[in-house]
Amino acid sequence: MTSEATAVPVVRGDGRAPDQLRPISITRGWSKQAEGSALIEFGNTRVLCTASLTAGVPRWLKGEGRGWVTAEYAMLPRATNTRSDRESVRGKIGGRTHEISRLIGRSLRSIIDTKALGENTIVLDCDVLQADGGTRTAAITGAYVALADAIRFARDNKLIAKSAQPLIDTIAAVSVGIIDGVPMLDLPYVEDVRAETDMNVVVTGSGKFVEVQGTAEGAPFDRDELNKLLDLALLGTTQLAAIQRETLADAL
Amino acid sequence: MTSEATAVPVVRGDGRAPDQLRPISITRGWSKQAEGSALIEFGNTRVLCTASLTAGVPRWLKGEGRGWVTAEYAMLPRATNTRSDRESVRGKIGGRTHEISRLIGRSLRSIIDTKALGENTIVLDCDVLQADGGTRTAAITGAYVALADAIRFARDNKLIAKSAQPLIDTIAAVSVGIIDGVPMLDLPYVEDVRAETDMNVVVTGSGKFVEVQGTAEGAPFDRDELNKLLDLALLGTTQLAAIQRETLADAL
Amino acid sequence: MTSEATAVPVVRGDGRAPDQLRPISITRGWSKQAEGSALIEFGNTRVLCTASLTAGVPRWLKGEGRGWVTAEYAMLPRATNTRSDRESVRGKIGGRTHEISRLIGRSLRSIIDTKALGENTIVLDCDVLQADGGTRTAAITGAYVALADAIRFARDNKLIAKSAQPLIDTIAAVSVGIIDGVPMLDLPYVEDVRAETDMNVVVTGSGKFVEVQGTAEGAPFDRDELNKLLDLALLGTTQLAAIQRETLADAL
Amino acid sequence: MTSEATAVPVVRGDGRAPDQLRPISITRGWSKQAEGSALIEFGNTRVLCTASLTAGVPRWLKGEGRGWVTAEYAMLPRATNTRSDRESVRGKIGGRTHEISRLIGRSLRSIIDTKALGENTIVLDCDVLQADGGTRTAAITGAYVALADAIRFARDNKLIAKSAQPLIDTIAAVSVGIIDGVPMLDLPYVEDVRAETDMNVVVTGSGKFVEVQGTAEGAPFDRDELNKLLDLALLGTTQLAAIQRETLADAL
Amino acid sequence: MTSEATAVPVVRGDGRAPDQLRPISITRGWSKQAEGSALIEFGNTRVLCTASLTAGVPRWLKGEGRGWVTAEYAMLPRATNTRSDRESVRGKIGGRTHEISRLIGRSLRSIIDTKALGENTIVLDCDVLQADGGTRTAAITGAYVALADAIRFARDNKLIAKSAQPLIDTIAAVSVGIIDGVPMLDLPYVEDVRAETDMNVVVTGSGKFVEVQGTAEGAPFDRDELNKLLDLALLGTTQLAAIQRETLADAL
Amino acid sequence: MTSEATAVPVVRGDGRAPDQLRPISITRGWSKQAEGSALIEFGNTRVLCTASLTAGVPRWLKGEGRGWVTAEYAMLPRATNTRSDRESVRGKIGGRTHEISRLIGRSLRSIIDTKALGENTIVLDCDVLQADGGTRTAAITGAYVALADAIRFARDNKLIAKSAQPLIDTIAAVSVGIIDGVPMLDLPYVEDVRAETDMNVVVTGSGKFVEVQGTAEGAPFDRDELNKLLDLALLGTTQLAAIQRETLADAL
Repeated sequence: MTSEATAVPVVRGDGRAPDQLRPISITRGWSKQAEGSALIEFGNTRVLCTASLTAGVPRWLKGEGRGWVTAEYAMLPRATNTRSDRESVRGKIGGRTHEISRLIGRSLRSIIDTKALGENTIVLDCDVLQADGGTRTAAITGAYVALADAIRFARDNKLIAKSAQPLIDTIAAVSVGIIDGVPMLDLPYVEDVRAETDMNVVVTGSGKFVEVQGTAEGAPFDRDELNKLLDLALLGTTQLAAIQRETLADAL
Repeated sequence: MTSEATAVPVVRGDGRAPDQLRPISITRGWSKQAEGSALIEFGNTRVLCTASLTAGVPRWLKGEGRGWVTAEYAMLPRATNTRSDRESVRGKIGGRTHEISRLIGRSLRSIIDTKALGENTIVLDCDVLQADGGTRTAAITGAYVALADAIRFARDNKLIAKSAQPLIDTIAAVSVGIIDGVPMLDLPYVEDVRAETDMNVVVTGSGKFVEVQGTAEGAPFDRDELNKLLDLALLGTTQLAAIQRETLADAL
Repeated sequence: MTSEATAVPVVRGDGRAPDQLRPISITRGWSKQAEGSALIEFGNTRVLCTASLTAGVPRWLKGEGRGWVTAEYAMLPRATNTRSDRESVRGKIGGRTHEISRLIGRSLRSIIDTKALGENTIVLDCDVLQADGGTRTAAITGAYVALADAIRFARDNKLIAKSAQPLIDTIAAVSVGIIDGVPMLDLPYVEDVRAETDMNVVVTGSGKFVEVQGTAEGAPFDRDELNKLLDLALLGTTQLAAIQRETLADAL
Repeated sequence: MTSEATAVPVVRGDGRAPDQLRPISITRGWSKQAEGSALIEFGNTRVLCTASLTAGVPRWLKGEGRGWVTAEYAMLPRATNTRSDRESVRGKIGGRTHEISRLIGRSLRSIIDTKALGENTIVLDCDVLQADGGTRTAAITGAYVALADAIRFARDNKLIAKSAQPLIDTIAAVSVGIIDGVPMLDLPYVEDVRAETDMNVVVTGSGKFVEVQGTAEGAPFDRDELNKLLDLALLGTTQLAAIQRETLADAL
Repeated sequence: MTSEATAVPVVRGDGRAPDQLRPISITRGWSKQAEGSALIEFGNTRVLCTASLTAGVPRWLKGEGRGWVTAEYAMLPRATNTRSDRESVRGKIGGRTHEISRLIGRSLRSIIDTKALGENTIVLDCDVLQADGGTRTAAITGAYVALADAIRFARDNKLIAKSAQPLIDTIAAVSVGIIDGVPMLDLPYVEDVRAETDMNVVVTGSGKFVEVQGTAEGAPFDRDELNKLLDLALLGTTQLAAIQRETLADAL
Repeated sequence: MTSEATAVPVVRGDGRAPDQLRPISITRGWSKQAEGSALIEFGNTRVLCTASLTAGVPRWLKGEGRGWVTAEYAMLPRATNTRSDRESVRGKIGGRTHEISRLIGRSLRSIIDTKALGENTIVLDCDVLQADGGTRTAAITGAYVALADAIRFARDNKLIAKSAQPLIDTIAAVSVGIIDGVPMLDLPYVEDVRAETDMNVVVTGSGKFVEVQGTAEGAPFDRDELNKLLDLALLGTTQLAAIQRETLADAL
């Protein structure tokens, strides 16, 4: 290529530019029963996130004056193009499910001051109702909204002190990847399966990394590619953080 | 009470008359990936029903020239007021889940001509996103819509012959119960837990019974009470059948 | 058919009339170790029912001053014509087993005054040694005898007060079904598999319903058929109640 | 003690001499469905043994022209003085159950000519209905009778040639132990728990050992004690073999 | 053969005489973290034995002032010539594993004075890193060394009194078998699969039996063969006891 | 700090500089049975890696002319300071185990040309015998050696063509982390638990990334810290690659 100025711009299958997010939608309070909830959509990916707050902590944490936040991720059997067997029917949870549940839990805990939460437990359930790539990053981003509302609930119902600030930052996540040599933001399923490198990045509202998980699916990647992917990820999570702020701005 | 004419009419917690259904809503095609799908709501009860169609049948049915329809029911952990552990985490499916899955499967099979379906399998997944009583009856009623669309899909995609009519009737279900001596239709959770007798009735579009499952939760019931409950159930399923017809009337 | 008077009477494969029970036998105290036990036979169906009484109740019931009655149903692997794998070997309990265990438990609890039982637990184990149709109804009918003896044991051993009356009624169950259009009582396996409609009915000694579970196996059934089946069931359970009374009349 | 001649003879709790078996009873053909069956009683120990014969062998044995014999042992939950949880409910089989199933299978295989059996499988189910010590030895002794009848069935139904002799010997088993220094034959539960040494011995009809499993429960045992126990075991199994022969002498 | 005097002596595949052990090696303290440990080798069989000591006992033993010793045996998936699936992947422990774990536990408990151990628990983990026959006997022999060091640790760290003597004897085990009619000591895999009779014998340092487990794999065995096998086993365990003593003689 | 030049150099608990690996040892061929094996030590971390080669591939890959490489990671129960329950005993594999097994499998597959491997499967078992931090990175580094030898075995035994080159690069992994603000290489357990950020990096012999997994355990990390950690990781993996080359240089 002789000149970048005359290069034909890359257009993705769904018409987006390489550095553009899919349409993002967050329906706060979708579930009537949970202390906090959000139905989050990254394009056709649709995840229902609920936050369940209960007094008390797991036994191994008792008496330390600190709270606990954990997460469980799952997919409905027909969230995908072809039906998968239920993990409850198989009688065991697969490695992928475990791995993603752990990632969501760690990510959300990273912005929680467990002392300020007191001896309370919040379980974040992230159930994928429809999957089209990026389910784990949508789950983290939506779970933050559910978590924030559960903490608001705790404060409103005097389970924690009015002045307690368990949330020390916000958190959002996005996937990035390299397709045909081009770094791209927020991959749908059709791009995800073609990506040479695939990276999930979890970033706080203040722009710091909580998780960087890059995997070479095709060819190994070099330092320069890694840097371009991180740039894109920071771009995307900044926008997601703005949407989260907006969503949470109003009274429920 | 001296005279029925002057009796104060019974008004339920949610303002309904004893013989009145909750607001019913069916969103057809809620899921983009499944061959048929419906998000059905009986008041605050919300069940996502998907129908997954695949060529071929289970091994025990091979070579008989007949199809297979089966169902799986499940609840999201926070579909209820307090969170329940996931069955996938416990490593086994509970008795209640098994029982309801079997009921849904039997009900839907009762209106299928498996010869006309050919050697194809349809799995109906009924996932309760929010539970407020009557989840199994909502699941059956919604699964019918998903099933009808999966069969339409099969016909449109020439998986079955244009002239094949695997659906020989429609099917709907409703719960009825006796509360403080009064027979009532379509119980929400708050009534369900107080019912002396609780009955789930599955009825075809032509008004015949497929399942009658009555259980004395408090006091045993007599023949007269049983008859009043069946009257109410037929009233409710007739209305549900009309809503199903309407929902399926349009092209998708 | 011009006249009912000249109709040839229906004779069943085993020579019974449509409204006739199979030979019923109850061997009380068959097991030496249990607090109550009965080997019950409905024709070739043979179920060993034991009642195990222990002081105390499950944790969720503690401190309420009430007792607990529960049941577990199972089949020996070669109770049937072809051997089935053991559920212990498969590592999980099937849906049918769960469903029947729950039915037996609910049925027996319906005639128990848990306050009068005090904080004691009775587990009813119903193990099918030989299966020829109607195993769940035989199990309920036999479990009642075992339960009555366990309560007698509790009274004799001063685990409950001499004046306590935890049993508020008796309970028995029978299956009914429609075969070639004819309603019939107490179906053996060979009839059960041919039945268009199959119903299990659990009735108290005072003639009220505790469970009515009717299922259309072939064609849906109408109100009239339902009524004829209920008539037959009440006829059968009345006779079973008499046999239970007789069995329990003597000192052990 | 100065002289053995004047020693007071040892009398056991149930009145037996140290070298005496409990009353033995074998009810052949107790189960109507199995190809062979026996309800065996060693005193109050009561085991139902069924033999299920099917054409074909497990995959790993296919095409070798040899048959397979295997066994499964289990206990009803209330076979014992206090109720045990079902292994199906616990979701796994305990070590003791596995160990005994394997012992029974090995013992029965030791007297089978698998070539003569052809590619057929016999599963021996040994379900303890009542346990009072010696359940594994009763199971082996009863399973032999069920096995012999299943082979007779195979011959009568031409599943094996008329001249085929898959049974090359008979097999029986008995427990022996040392209690207060005295070697004793066929221990009931009350003696079993007190035994210093406990041994199960499986012996062919021709008087050779198939299994010798001796365990020091209290104090280790010496060569002399071992020899006395083996003497007793041979005495007992000779008598059991005679009872088996008698039981099988008649046409079924 | 006319005369035993001129018989050609039997030489085994690895050059040993029938009554000769394989090269035995015990590396004490192989694991840095456990309270006691030993890597034991019987020829190419290699088992890592660790003893984990913790204060307290299982719930069923609490308050009795006695300790508990138990064992778990397992094999690495590629300890054998062909890889086996992991039991953790299969989701259940096989019968053989259970059986051997129980054997090791019983054997080690037989030389423990649980009163002297106080309310402490020792778990012996025996993991087979390489298997070439005799893994269970190597495990018992090595576990003794790990156990002895764990007790030494308990004494040094004042978890038990300086004067407490929980070890009342030493324990070792060896396999013996009959191959082509010749009784042989300490069978490697290649001999084990060919053995007509296979016996594992567990013997205390004072020469008494704790376990005698003889199994006819091919033909049943008679009294004379049994005696020859026991002679060989006592010869082998005497030598193993000497090696154990030597290994434990030095300060760690 | 006024000047870097006069800063006291950081010395770690074990005396290493921040950019220094622990002593690395690889014992090639430690296991006699596997087609390839290595006992690898990173300080006190000790992992036994075996490669099991079998002809054929999993069903989903059949007929594609490509091979398969997968991995399973596990820990002995007493590899750690306090004993953990076996996953086989718990009946399920934990999330951490799944996650690490998947990481090892992906890493090794990234340097395999599956076409050149032909329809053969290699399973890499990585069993942690002693754990002191960095077990997953040691496992990847050791598994490479086992894999290389299994491929050599395949070539020597003509399971693949003499000219086939399934290995397209080498692979090694190391952990890095930030402790008290200082980036450090190859963390032992005592440092790992104190790290604010923890990163595992998998790098090919040609210096490209295959996996970058960074997690903020304490505070989130910024771009600059990320870069320093990657520098250290590349330094470490370059040294590990050299050790691997040396180890594999000789004939086995």
